Amino acid sequence: MEMEKPYVIGIDMGGTNTAFGIVDTRGNVIVKGSIKTDNLDIDDYISQLRTECGKLIDSVGGIDKIKGIGAGCPNGNYYTGNIEYAPNLPWKGIVPFAKMLSEAFGLPTAITNDANAAAVGEMTYGVARGMKNFIMITLGTGVGSGIVIDGKIVYGHDGFAGELGHVNIMRNGRMCGCGRLGCLEAYTSATGVARSAHEILDMSETPSSLRNIPVETITSKDVYDAAMAGDEVAKEIFNYTGKLLGEAFSDFVAFSAPEAIVLFGGLAKAGDLILKPIVENMEKNLLTVWKGKVKVLFSTLKDADAAVLGASALAWEL
Amino acid sequence: MEMEKPYVIGIDMGGTNTAFGIVDTRGNVIVKGSIKTDNLDIDDYISQLRTECGKLIDSVGGIDKIKGIGAGCPNGNYYTGNIEYAPNLPWKGIVPFAKMLSEAFGLPTAITNDANAAAVGEMTYGVARGMKNFIMITLGTGVGSGIVIDGKIVYGHDGFAGELGHVNIMRNGRMCGCGRLGCLEAYTSATGVARSAHEILDMSETPSSLRNIPVETITSKDVYDAAMAGDEVAKEIFNYTGKLLGEAFSDFVAFSAPEAIVLFGGLAKAGDLILKPIVENMEKNLLTVWKGKVKVLFSTLKDADAAVLGASALAWEL
Repeated sequence: MEMEKPYVIGIDMGGTNTAFGIVDTRGNVIVKGSIKTDNLDIDDYISQLRTECGKLIDSVGGIDKIKGIGAGCPNGNYYTGNIEYAPNLPWKGIVPFAKMLSEAFGLPTAITNDANAAAVGEMTYGVARGMKNFIMITLGTGVGSGIVIDGKIVYGHDGFAGELGHVNIMRNGRMCGCGRLGCLEAYTSATGVARSAHEILDMSETPSSLRNIPVETITSKDVYDAAMAGDEVAKEIFNYTGKLLGEAFSDFVAFSAPEAIVLFGGLAKAGDLILKPIVENMEKNLLTVWKGKVKVLFSTLKDADAAVLGASALAWEL
Repeated sequence: MEMEKPYVIGIDMGGTNTAFGIVDTRGNVIVKGSIKTDNLDIDDYISQLRTECGKLIDSVGGIDKIKGIGAGCPNGNYYTGNIEYAPNLPWKGIVPFAKMLSEAFGLPTAITNDANAAAVGEMTYGVARGMKNFIMITLGTGVGSGIVIDGKIVYGHDGFAGELGHVNIMRNGRMCGCGRLGCLEAYTSATGVARSAHEILDMSETPSSLRNIPVETITSKDVYDAAMAGDEVAKEIFNYTGKLLGEAFSDFVAFSAPEAIVLFGGLAKAGDLILKPIVENMEKNLLTVWKGKVKVLFSTLKDADAAVLGASALAWEL
């Protein structure tokens, strides 16, 4: 009888860096490393990734111990295994990334986008363990989502389902990075919060420590620090952001009736500052049948490892 | 070897009437009947339904030919088999309808709401045959939806998923029957179209045959007739309705990336009058990745039988 292979490899590809690690069945990242993503030649990138991962593989007892590879990539398509037209990567067009990894490592490989990977990670190792129906919302530079229905990620007809950062929350609203107007992401990403800061500072003359910072350089971190220090304007910025999220969540609930919505990413660190207005406004807008029934939770995955963990979890299903 | 049972029973419960029929594997309604729904005693109602269905069952060769029963009911919960707090039915609170039917007939029984039943019917016998991912939108007195992902209806954590008639399309918009403001249903149901007619007639003095009808009595049928006769204001009412649907559809696509959105119900009969503005506004608002890829189709189920067919299709899975 063959021993069950005890490890999987998780790869988290960002526009700048790629982090990777070897993960055990309990969700411990045993060893980890990283390389630069901005390598203009995809073959060089794969070869460097193979070399660096190879050192980690050797350190845990060799490739026979590894069940497979899971990778979270911008615009990663689970069905095709391709990275398709990712705007922030050096490789244009369609990159058959799963196939390239699989050939380089001799291991089965699955890829998806980073928000879906986060949802798989949360379901496998985190706060959504045991849940069959939940929605993961990643609040970072962008706003992403991974939707889980009946215990499975929703990929849709073409593999790209779950773009909840790009539902419209304001007709003719703010310009979004996607080229359209009024997306949730344009208001509730880190840069969205900074834009709200500009607007809210402009609209009043309420004293605020944020006025000591040149307005173009205010970040969501500055808003957080100010709010934690009791700044009223900064708190109002969080209230506004949470209100928009809560309103959007009530529509997400009408779609898939999840047990919980799980928040992940930078903004999720703001704790009650963001959670309270989210829950209050979600509850206010929910259909009666769901009032008081849908949890809003923070991810419990350790931040530094979460993306690698999430990606790695894909590989258990291979 | 036991012969596969050739028939199922479909029951379509409305607030006033309940239609039922015996359906074969190809989606032919072999025999059908109906009774009044507004029977204040649920036991009397079940007993009458049993008697009338019994006649049909006898006419096709007896109960041994029947695989099971599927019923579409207002607020029907697939998981629990209960009708839960349906506002337009004579029985208040929770009615264990699947259990009652199953006991009365001695047959396995599944229930769901009418929009989900319509989606199952479309997938089993209609235009969505072979599709694994689509969204059914029912445009009638209300606006309902049945969401199919990976070939299965989305029921969600509690059995009530897919209330797309109640996503918000206008903050502080029109009062909806559900008690909230700005739901899609308040604009694009039959009564929503009539309300739009009032508003649009009030906002201009453009001549219109609709001005010959007392404004409080204008129906969506009047608007349709006028639009077909070339009335400009009536066409504008359809354009407005289609615009709101198309904008909402682009958000639905961002959720589940369906292959198609299928329209069913009275308003769907307006053909290009409603389809053109829907498609135009959906395309204008879709994320680039989906432009030109998502079909908008009309149901191909015969109207009189569609609801019974849809409900019956549930029973093939029992």
